[in-house]
Amino acid sequence: MNYIGIDLGGTKILGALFDDNGTVIYKNKKKTKAKNGIKAVEEQLFSLIDDLTDKSGKEEIKAIGIGVPGLVDVKTGTVKFAPNIAMNNYPIGDLIRDKYKIDVFVGNDVNVGTLGEWKYSPEGKSSNFIGIFVGTGIGGGIIIDNKLYTGSGGVAGELGHMTIDSNGAICGCGSRGCLEAVASKTGIQAEIKARIKRGEDTDIKESLEKEGILKSGPLRAAYDKGDIVVRETVERAAKYLGVGVANLINIFDPEAVVFGGGVIEELGDIILPIVKEEASRYAMRSIFENVKFEKAQLGDDAGIMGAFVLAQEGVK
Amino acid sequence: MNYIGIDLGGTKILGALFDDNGTVIYKNKKKTKAKNGIKAVEEQLFSLIDDLTDKSGKEEIKAIGIGVPGLVDVKTGTVKFAPNIAMNNYPIGDLIRDKYKIDVFVGNDVNVGTLGEWKYSPEGKSSNFIGIFVGTGIGGGIIIDNKLYTGSGGVAGELGHMTIDSNGAICGCGSRGCLEAVASKTGIQAEIKARIKRGEDTDIKESLEKEGILKSGPLRAAYDKGDIVVRETVERAAKYLGVGVANLINIFDPEAVVFGGGVIEELGDIILPIVKEEASRYAMRSIFENVKFEKAQLGDDAGIMGAFVLAQEGVK
Repeated sequence: MNYIGIDLGGTKILGALFDDNGTVIYKNKKKTKAKNGIKAVEEQLFSLIDDLTDKSGKEEIKAIGIGVPGLVDVKTGTVKFAPNIAMNNYPIGDLIRDKYKIDVFVGNDVNVGTLGEWKYSPEGKSSNFIGIFVGTGIGGGIIIDNKLYTGSGGVAGELGHMTIDSNGAICGCGSRGCLEAVASKTGIQAEIKARIKRGEDTDIKESLEKEGILKSGPLRAAYDKGDIVVRETVERAAKYLGVGVANLINIFDPEAVVFGGGVIEELGDIILPIVKEEASRYAMRSIFENVKFEKAQLGDDAGIMGAFVLAQEGVK
Repeated sequence: MNYIGIDLGGTKILGALFDDNGTVIYKNKKKTKAKNGIKAVEEQLFSLIDDLTDKSGKEEIKAIGIGVPGLVDVKTGTVKFAPNIAMNNYPIGDLIRDKYKIDVFVGNDVNVGTLGEWKYSPEGKSSNFIGIFVGTGIGGGIIIDNKLYTGSGGVAGELGHMTIDSNGAICGCGSRGCLEAVASKTGIQAEIKARIKRGEDTDIKESLEKEGILKSGPLRAAYDKGDIVVRETVERAAKYLGVGVANLINIFDPEAVVFGGGVIEELGDIILPIVKEEASRYAMRSIFENVKFEKAQLGDDAGIMGAFVLAQEGVK
C-alpha cells in the first residue's frame, strides 16, 4: 500500500510517492504557474499526480495528502482562500477524489509541516506539540492528544495572527500587532525600511534596494558583520516571537514547541536562544520549565513528509 | 449512584450532593479559614465532605469533583500553588481518596466552571468551547473535542496570562501586558487609580478609598451615571478583552466562547458588545463569523455544577 504526499506551494508543487513506512519511493516537482490562473495550477497538479500514480504501478495508493498555503476547511477538503495558488473556495479534495478514486486529505501547509515535524521529531512524538514556522509570514500548527487540531470550522491554528502588541504594527490581515506583523521576515523588513527612512544607515540597504525584498541570506550576513540596525531589528523580532511562544505555552502547556521556516533555518542559532529567554520571562515558570524547544528537522521536506502523515493518519 | 461537587474558594467552601442526572440533593457551605493555615482549611473541607457523605446515606458516592483557585496538576490531583487557600504542593486528591475511599478529581476553579457552563449551555454542548471568567483576575478553560483540555503537565488554560500588549502594564504574575493586567477588575482598578493620581476626578474615588478595593456594584453605578474616567476605563478593558478573545478565536476556531465572572455579571451588557465588536476587528473574518458569544448561565453555581461534571466525566 502506497501514499502520495504533495506540497502545493506558490512557485512549485512538490510530490512524492511513499510506502507504508514513509520511505520515499519516487519524488518529482512541477511549476505551480499560479499567475496563469486556477486552470493552469490544476493542470500542473493533475499532471504531477498522474506521474506519481504511474510510478506506483500495480501497488494500490491508499490516500493522497496535500498541504496548501492558505485557509483550508479540512472537513470538506475545500481551499477557502489561498491567493498564492489562485484558489478561492476551491474543492480540491473532491476534484482529486472524483478523478483518481483515491481518498484525499487537505491541510494548511504549516499545519501539515507541523504534523511532519511532530511525527519525525528526534525527541519522540509529544502528545501535545506546537509548530511555529517563521518565513515571509508566520504560521503554525497544534497537535493535541496526538492529533492535528483543526477546530470547529477546520481552520484553527492561525498562530501568526495572535496579537501580542495591541498598539503594534498593522498586519497584512488587517489586524494590529499580530506575531506575523512584528516577528516575520515581512515584519523585520518593514522595521528596517522604517529605520532607513528615518535616516539610519545599514549594510542591508543595498540588497534590499536591489532585490526589492529582504532575503534571509544577506540578513544573516549583515547580522554577522555587526550591523546595528539589522542586529537590533532581528533581536526585537526574536523577543516578540518569545512573547508569542510564552502565550502558547501558557495556553497549551505543551510538551514541545518546534521552530522552522526560512528565517529559523538561516538565523535560528541567533533567534532561538533569545526566543527561549524572552518566553521564560513572559510564561508561567511552572509551565515553561517542562517545555522542550526544538529546531525543525525536515527542512524543505516538511511539506511532503507532513502530507504523507496527513494521508496516513486520515486527518479531517 | 451519587456525586459530590465542591467549589473550594478563598472565603467559603461550597459543596453539593448530586444524583446521576446532576440534580442537587443537598447543598451546604463552610468558611474556608485560609488565614488559619492549611490544617484549618483541611478540617473545614473534611467536615463538609463528612456532612455530604452522611446525607447520601446508603446510596454509594461514585466520585468527588473539586475546583480550587490555583495551579493544579489534574493528573495527580495535587494543588501546585493556590495561595488563597493556603495550598502549596498539596496532594488534596490523594488525601481525600485515602480518607473516604472515593475517587477524586481536582481541577482549577475556572477550568471547572467552564466545564459546567459547557455542559449546561442553553445553546447545547459545543465540541470546541472556550470559557473566560473576568473578576479580580481573569481565568479560563478550554474544551476540545468534548473534553476539558489540561495540557501535558495538567496546567493548561492560563488564558488570563496571555500577553496582548507586550509594552503594557505589569501583571501580578511578573509578566507584562497580560489580559489579566489590562482587562480584569484589578486592571481596571489600577488604571482608575493612575488617573486619580494624575488629578482626574471620578465618582468612584470615594468608594475606592472607603472599601480599599474596587467593587463591581459601585463601578456599574458610576458607569451608569456617565462618569468619564469609569466609562473610558471600562471600555478600554473591554477592548483589550476583545483582543484576547480574537486571539483565542484565531487559535482555536471554537464553536462558542462563554463569558462569566463578577465583572461580566455586573457589567456584561456594557462589556460584551464591545468585546464582540473589537474581536471582529482583530480576528480573521472567516473564523470569527462562525463563533457564538454566550453569557455564562450558572452564576455562583458554576463551581459546584462544574465539579459535578468533573466527577462524572472523570477528567484527569
